[in-house]
Amino acid sequence: MTNIAAPHIDALRTLLGESGLLVEKHDLEAYETGARFDRGVAAFVMRPKSTEEVSAAVAYCVTHRIDFIPQSGNTGLVSGSTPDETGTQAILSLDRLTTLGGIDVVNRSVNAGAGVRLSALNARAETDGLFFPIDLGADPMLGGMIATNTGGSRFLRYGDVRANTLGLKVVLADEAGTVLDFTSGLRKNNTGVDWKHLFIGTTGVFGIVTECVLNLEPLPGQQATALLVPASDQAVPGLLVQMEQACGSALSAFEGMSGNSIRAALAHVPALRNPFEGGIVPDFVILMELTRTSQACERDQPLDALLESVLAEIWDSTNKPLANALMGPPAEMWALRHALSEGVRHSGRLFAFDLSFRRGDTLAFLAQMKAQLADTYPDLTVCDFGHLGDGGVHFNLVAQPDDPDLADPGFEAALRDLVFSVAVDDFGGSFSAEHGIGHKNQAWYDHYTPQAVRTLAASLKRAISPGKRGAMHF
Amino acid sequence: MTNIAAPHIDALRTLLGESGLLVEKHDLEAYETGARFDRGVAAFVMRPKSTEEVSAAVAYCVTHRIDFIPQSGNTGLVSGSTPDETGTQAILSLDRLTTLGGIDVVNRSVNAGAGVRLSALNARAETDGLFFPIDLGADPMLGGMIATNTGGSRFLRYGDVRANTLGLKVVLADEAGTVLDFTSGLRKNNTGVDWKHLFIGTTGVFGIVTECVLNLEPLPGQQATALLVPASDQAVPGLLVQMEQACGSALSAFEGMSGNSIRAALAHVPALRNPFEGGIVPDFVILMELTRTSQACERDQPLDALLESVLAEIWDSTNKPLANALMGPPAEMWALRHALSEGVRHSGRLFAFDLSFRRGDTLAFLAQMKAQLADTYPDLTVCDFGHLGDGGVHFNLVAQPDDPDLADPGFEAALRDLVFSVAVDDFGGSFSAEHGIGHKNQAWYDHYTPQAVRTLAASLKRAISPGKRGAMHF
Repeated sequence: MTNIAAPHIDALRTLLGESGLLVEKHDLEAYETGARFDRGVAAFVMRPKSTEEVSAAVAYCVTHRIDFIPQSGNTGLVSGSTPDETGTQAILSLDRLTTLGGIDVVNRSVNAGAGVRLSALNARAETDGLFFPIDLGADPMLGGMIATNTGGSRFLRYGDVRANTLGLKVVLADEAGTVLDFTSGLRKNNTGVDWKHLFIGTTGVFGIVTECVLNLEPLPGQQATALLVPASDQAVPGLLVQMEQACGSALSAFEGMSGNSIRAALAHVPALRNPFEGGIVPDFVILMELTRTSQACERDQPLDALLESVLAEIWDSTNKPLANALMGPPAEMWALRHALSEGVRHSGRLFAFDLSFRRGDTLAFLAQMKAQLADTYPDLTVCDFGHLGDGGVHFNLVAQPDDPDLADPGFEAALRDLVFSVAVDDFGGSFSAEHGIGHKNQAWYDHYTPQAVRTLAASLKRAISPGKRGAMHF
Repeated sequence: MTNIAAPHIDALRTLLGESGLLVEKHDLEAYETGARFDRGVAAFVMRPKSTEEVSAAVAYCVTHRIDFIPQSGNTGLVSGSTPDETGTQAILSLDRLTTLGGIDVVNRSVNAGAGVRLSALNARAETDGLFFPIDLGADPMLGGMIATNTGGSRFLRYGDVRANTLGLKVVLADEAGTVLDFTSGLRKNNTGVDWKHLFIGTTGVFGIVTECVLNLEPLPGQQATALLVPASDQAVPGLLVQMEQACGSALSAFEGMSGNSIRAALAHVPALRNPFEGGIVPDFVILMELTRTSQACERDQPLDALLESVLAEIWDSTNKPLANALMGPPAEMWALRHALSEGVRHSGRLFAFDLSFRRGDTLAFLAQMKAQLADTYPDLTVCDFGHLGDGGVHFNLVAQPDDPDLADPGFEAALRDLVFSVAVDDFGGSFSAEHGIGHKNQAWYDHYTPQAVRTLAASLKRAISPGKRGAMHF
């Protein structure tokens, strides 16, 4: 049971109905456990089934000083949607807000509840030849995608969740549970503050998203992919520029994969084929993708032919940026890319960093950081991969279980200090490119955010949603 | 001279230097007059030449309760950058913040001061095959473009200023003149609030933008344009959908032009050629454009051929959506499009509305509104044009000088009430699609913004930039 007083439980059950409130331990477990390692104890779980019920529950909790954490699919990677260990925090689950409106084909948009899964949205949109262009390994709910502002592998072409959100409905954490409705679905509207941006990427701190209007894009009908082996690190930025100039908006992905991360994937995901000659994995490989909508591509030469001619020209260019280039089936190449994360997780004890840089700095950071790590922590394996097209780097460090460093209780903190000092201080990069701020990043937010900005964020929080929301305070 | 006390003038001159403060009437005039009709009286003009000087000037004004209006190119259309008639408001001009950094080719970005003209930015970017993809008739400064969140004719392909702004440097209107620096130039960064969105499109109410980091796009190397005459209003939304599915991201403009606006342009801009058979202008014409970057297009069939084959297919489709289609030189077709505004302005007394709708509602609004106006104000001519690709409508009503309605002092207010009641109340549209909120729209902001939202905006204003800023209070 819960350590929140019984009258509160009764009152909330009256507001939300019998199935709207969970208090039994076995019912709570699924909500207490995050996607990676994090696990807390929930006081109870509220499961409102409409914006009005969210408003009523929030108003009750704020009025009675009950601390609560909004949660949707709970697939985030920074402990932004799980309670702490005290058992004093309730969970406000959005998983019953699953209303999915019809596709507005002319506006290329859809209204959807915060509890709708990405896969469910795309299944609906596909029948009209459309999709929500955020490409992720996981299958999150839309509320969490908005609260995290997820990016993914096709950011280069389509942008992030923010760029594809036309509107929101939000419940503020105030004593009234104020509902703000910005769901007009207009694509162009400059009538004051564009409020949705305060709620996108801020982990529910400023309010709880209950509904959204999303932009949909025409489904690509044709893809062509290649694995590029650059002649050197220095050649990579130029390759990106050449590809963008040659392929324009047909370029939909330009992903970096270290040899270590590819080897980890091949070792731990047996179904994968090793596409490299003699099975020898290069040190660094780029997965690039071209896409086109179905009708246009039928009129031009096949996309494979276009890609081949672009690659031939780059191959012959005077600076010789390519050591190798393999064209191949998109499904096989993306299977390799999407297996990297799982492969790395199974390679040992993982220390993961979600970094980003100005695009020209990515390779320079990797070179400098790897050199420093080889000096300081020679037993760590660097298994980086990421999104060269937008500067994102999933910088993963893997230790073997017998690494003596692991016995040092200060090891992880020292390692994180070192990586962030190079990434953020030396290169002006981000300490959270696409995973957002959760408990895991709160300390780094405090460290790297100027005092004036933190003060301002706190003022906004007080002005907009004064109710408590876990320990998060940005 | 000015009615601000001489000691203030002396103190500000000390902060900004001799050339940084203008007080003589003949020096002020250029800053007192807006792009359209609006004209006020400035107490004096401050012309800081760096962010530090902006900060010092703002701190002084806020501390001493001097009301000031930020202004850059002063080409806006809603009186957002001109003082009122009282002579008590100073102007903070950003026109000396003209530092333009080098182009970061790999990051496709540039750092630029708020006083840089759009044309100057594009001249610099062109040497690297890039451009800032906001297509406007005017040549504004970047500060005003950001404060207004301008859209333009290629929104469909590239989005608005917001979508193309990577970062900002901002001075808050507080007693310290606090400087916030968000100019890291990262494309992907989720470390809390994405502050730039509070300052984009809010007319300087929350702070003064002094510097920006902008996204640049590869210059299109090949264009193809056509004028489409739809078979009926009902055919237009389907045409947009068919074109997007057929042409994907090559579709860079889909603009609507009423016959009345075309006739006005032809009558008042003599250099224009009438492209229609027998000179007979249709009731409604769509200007569509396809673009590609230069290298990619050389590999595929010419864009003209692609457009021709798409048009042939649509021409033959069973619902026969097209009555006519004319392909022609892009320069000539855009000259017609860009002349509409001037033509309409010269056709009589103009009542202009900057509206937007969900894309499927645009034509339905036009039909209903025109019917109601024909009933109520039969002597008005409707000269609408706009951006069908994003739902934007420049809804222009022209009265002839002898129209008896003009003698009625309540006419304009009644007309605006009627149009907004249909556009906003009946169709859920925007009363300011891309011109922002200035004095001209303040009353409509007050009328159409829910009390809870206005209260929240006022709280934010107090928390972020408590200093006065003209009469604007959203």
